[in-house]
Amino acid sequence: MSRSAHDSPRPASKEGKAMHPDLLNDNILKTQYAVRGELYTRAQELAKSGGEVIYTNIGNPQQLGQEPLVFNRQVLALLLAPFLLDHPSASALFPREAIDRARELLAAFGGRMGAYSDARGAPAIRQQVAAFIEARDGQPADPEDIYLTDGASVGVKYALNALIRDGNDGILCPIPQYPLYSAAIQLFGGKLVPYYPEEDAGWDLNLEALRGAVKKARAEGTVLRALAFINPGNPTGQVLTRETLRELIAFAHDEGLVLLADEVYQPNIYQDEKPFVSAKRVLREMGEPWASSVELASFHTVSKGMLGECGLRGGYVEWVNIHPGAQAELYKVASVNLCPNTVGQATVSLMVAPPTGDSEAARQYAKQYEDSLASLRRRAHVMTDAFNGLEGASCNFTEGAMYSFPRLHLPAKAIQAAKEAGKDPDTFYCLALLADTGIVTVPGSGFGQVEGTFHLRTTILPQEDVMHEFVDKLRTFHKSFMAKYKD
Amino acid sequence: MSRSAHDSPRPASKEGKAMHPDLLNDNILKTQYAVRGELYTRAQELAKSGGEVIYTNIGNPQQLGQEPLVFNRQVLALLLAPFLLDHPSASALFPREAIDRARELLAAFGGRMGAYSDARGAPAIRQQVAAFIEARDGQPADPEDIYLTDGASVGVKYALNALIRDGNDGILCPIPQYPLYSAAIQLFGGKLVPYYPEEDAGWDLNLEALRGAVKKARAEGTVLRALAFINPGNPTGQVLTRETLRELIAFAHDEGLVLLADEVYQPNIYQDEKPFVSAKRVLREMGEPWASSVELASFHTVSKGMLGECGLRGGYVEWVNIHPGAQAELYKVASVNLCPNTVGQATVSLMVAPPTGDSEAARQYAKQYEDSLASLRRRAHVMTDAFNGLEGASCNFTEGAMYSFPRLHLPAKAIQAAKEAGKDPDTFYCLALLADTGIVTVPGSGFGQVEGTFHLRTTILPQEDVMHEFVDKLRTFHKSFMAKYKD
Repeated sequence: MSRSAHDSPRPASKEGKAMHPDLLNDNILKTQYAVRGELYTRAQELAKSGGEVIYTNIGNPQQLGQEPLVFNRQVLALLLAPFLLDHPSASALFPREAIDRARELLAAFGGRMGAYSDARGAPAIRQQVAAFIEARDGQPADPEDIYLTDGASVGVKYALNALIRDGNDGILCPIPQYPLYSAAIQLFGGKLVPYYPEEDAGWDLNLEALRGAVKKARAEGTVLRALAFINPGNPTGQVLTRETLRELIAFAHDEGLVLLADEVYQPNIYQDEKPFVSAKRVLREMGEPWASSVELASFHTVSKGMLGECGLRGGYVEWVNIHPGAQAELYKVASVNLCPNTVGQATVSLMVAPPTGDSEAARQYAKQYEDSLASLRRRAHVMTDAFNGLEGASCNFTEGAMYSFPRLHLPAKAIQAAKEAGKDPDTFYCLALLADTGIVTVPGSGFGQVEGTFHLRTTILPQEDVMHEFVDKLRTFHKSFMAKYKD
Repeated sequence: MSRSAHDSPRPASKEGKAMHPDLLNDNILKTQYAVRGELYTRAQELAKSGGEVIYTNIGNPQQLGQEPLVFNRQVLALLLAPFLLDHPSASALFPREAIDRARELLAAFGGRMGAYSDARGAPAIRQQVAAFIEARDGQPADPEDIYLTDGASVGVKYALNALIRDGNDGILCPIPQYPLYSAAIQLFGGKLVPYYPEEDAGWDLNLEALRGAVKKARAEGTVLRALAFINPGNPTGQVLTRETLRELIAFAHDEGLVLLADEVYQPNIYQDEKPFVSAKRVLREMGEPWASSVELASFHTVSKGMLGECGLRGGYVEWVNIHPGAQAELYKVASVNLCPNTVGQATVSLMVAPPTGDSEAARQYAKQYEDSLASLRRRAHVMTDAFNGLEGASCNFTEGAMYSFPRLHLPAKAIQAAKEAGKDPDTFYCLALLADTGIVTVPGSGFGQVEGTFHLRTTILPQEDVMHEFVDKLRTFHKSFMAKYKD
């Protein structure tokens, strides 16, 4: 946490440097960010020296070959080169629907993609997002409650920055968690308060464990401000049921917590039993007192789903039941950032309002979307089956999102060898995997895990034509690793 | 500043809300952001009710009709729709140079604009930026010291976040200043320490006043961390001479301060006597001990200059003489944000490496660029001449950047009327101007000014075909305002 002004002043420089690493903001120094940590650095070195590297450490679909949706890119190209809209040859390159959509979207930006928009994003796109949410949930949504952002993480940071006032303020996070949460909570000087979903129950919520976490934190003087959850789960891949969401919402109500609903993987669902249901929908369907009182922020992005447009940085947050005065403060913070990038905003529009009707463009879009989803579904099975086929590993099925998070039952000798190397056992395993195969994963310790358990996270994103080779490499490595350290 | 954990805990909710405006992070609540403050809100209301509004409150060139550089947009369109590169009809719509450049740039992103890049931006573009700086300064630049960002403000915030540790830490800022600085310093819980360039000397640095500011701040217990300056000036429009930059650099060296050089308007120069000279160049030309010791961060952007691509959010920061350990911390913070948007990154590439040689594309680019610069230069004259032609106003010439910042010598009766309305006198003037003419400006109080002086900031961006009408409106309003409140 920050020191306050009445503490004794800190040194202004060291070794002639004001910007000395020992003299920077403590919260930055304390922040850890595992997704691009030691494994990533080693992988970069390996790639530099000419080794083949397979990046399954980060949900970056296009990096591993997922093609962008063609219609979206046609529209974006026209938005950036609007002088093509009236060009006689344009129809040779762009379907009519893309040209029409580009005209419509361009108008949302006052005809100028290069101008700042409102800091919350272009009003017409915020309306489209509201319409998308209404259609998804069967419940009303207000464009005034929607802020477009440069990817979902910006929205998450707005919420955490506003909520965290000092080192007493705590945010409940599932463990394992996507490390944006641990990093941002530390950057803003708050406390991450862990709660543990149950691996043996398919990573479902354990309400008793959550209650225990709250009780313990409060006994230690922590002021709980919010509860974060990720649905579908990252890194754990579970999809939450309506019943679990009802429990979470009732709990947030009883305990006075803001719900931070990371719903960025909502289109990535790989089974039929548990469809995605939004927290907003459940909250409204529960009726009063929950419907109009439980504070909720829901985050979405163009980076995941079937768009996979990570590099374009587009997303939105919906503020539900948030005090208008607090929303005004969030608007002010957004204003200091001027505006979310307009291409990312346009991509949000294309995500929430895909082409419809009986056109060739709409048919092509639907086919590309459905093929991509079906392929991811197959890959979710291949990946989890592969891990479950390994001796000393077990893996819940990836019901949704983009990751498998197998548990590794490492032999005592491997744990001892890791200790001698000064590494966490799962980091030790992942480093060996990288060295042997070029596969970059993230150790479970980067997300947090129950003490004494070890995991790794891999994406399910290798394309199907290389997936079998990927699985073979993994299997061969695992066998030899386990044999080497056999008890 | 933040409270620390040993203070008594703050309430968790009020009126049933955890996210109640009284219970948010103090630094957010205290932050003010004038560029989109009361004037902007009133302007939006006016626009909604159908009134004509002229937005000169913000440097948003395309909003007022500046056309984007065609070549840049051709390349960006191709980057987003790479399937066009091999299309037989592409050459009907795109010049060969744009197609070649798009292929080259696409390779910098591994062929995928939709993939995350490195958090510091694509290495090949960071190399282009380094080459641009070398050519500009005649001094070496290292791509490892260059981070691409979503606009310059992100880089400014990285530096301030790292430097500010607690409420004792102070950042020297020129007053008047671009309110990003005051807002970000407040958001990070630090102290803005004002120093006052001299209006009567064309807003040149007053070294004695700066020394006085430092002495006073230190006597009050403030630990000074950095000195920010804006060259060319915003809102004040001055261009700093080499001599002034030498003074600033020597001062930073003697006082152990990091220099934060906001050089985003470096291409916007409207006179020949004082060309833009970068702080990096002067620092290196000064030789030792300054050349390899003075810590400097220089910020640049695609939002200004002749590109005016505000909406695309692209920029960079060059870290000069910054400790490698501190740079690693900055890289970590950037990693939590995943990566700057790839379209903004590509736009930075196009800014630093425009088309060259004897092609039609290069000629067209050069013509469009030069016409735009010449037009801005004429407008800088028209605007400042207009203010100097008004009774009770005086205005330094806009030597660079995009703004005029006239001083208003308001009559006592106007000041009294403002007081009765509960407004700052310059805000009172600007609100009346908006109500009468639809012209949106920003009062000097939003930037800070010497006590008892009153100013406003307007951009010089109205296009030339409407500039005379703009000036007429201004003149008519001013005359009637001054007559109304005549002493």
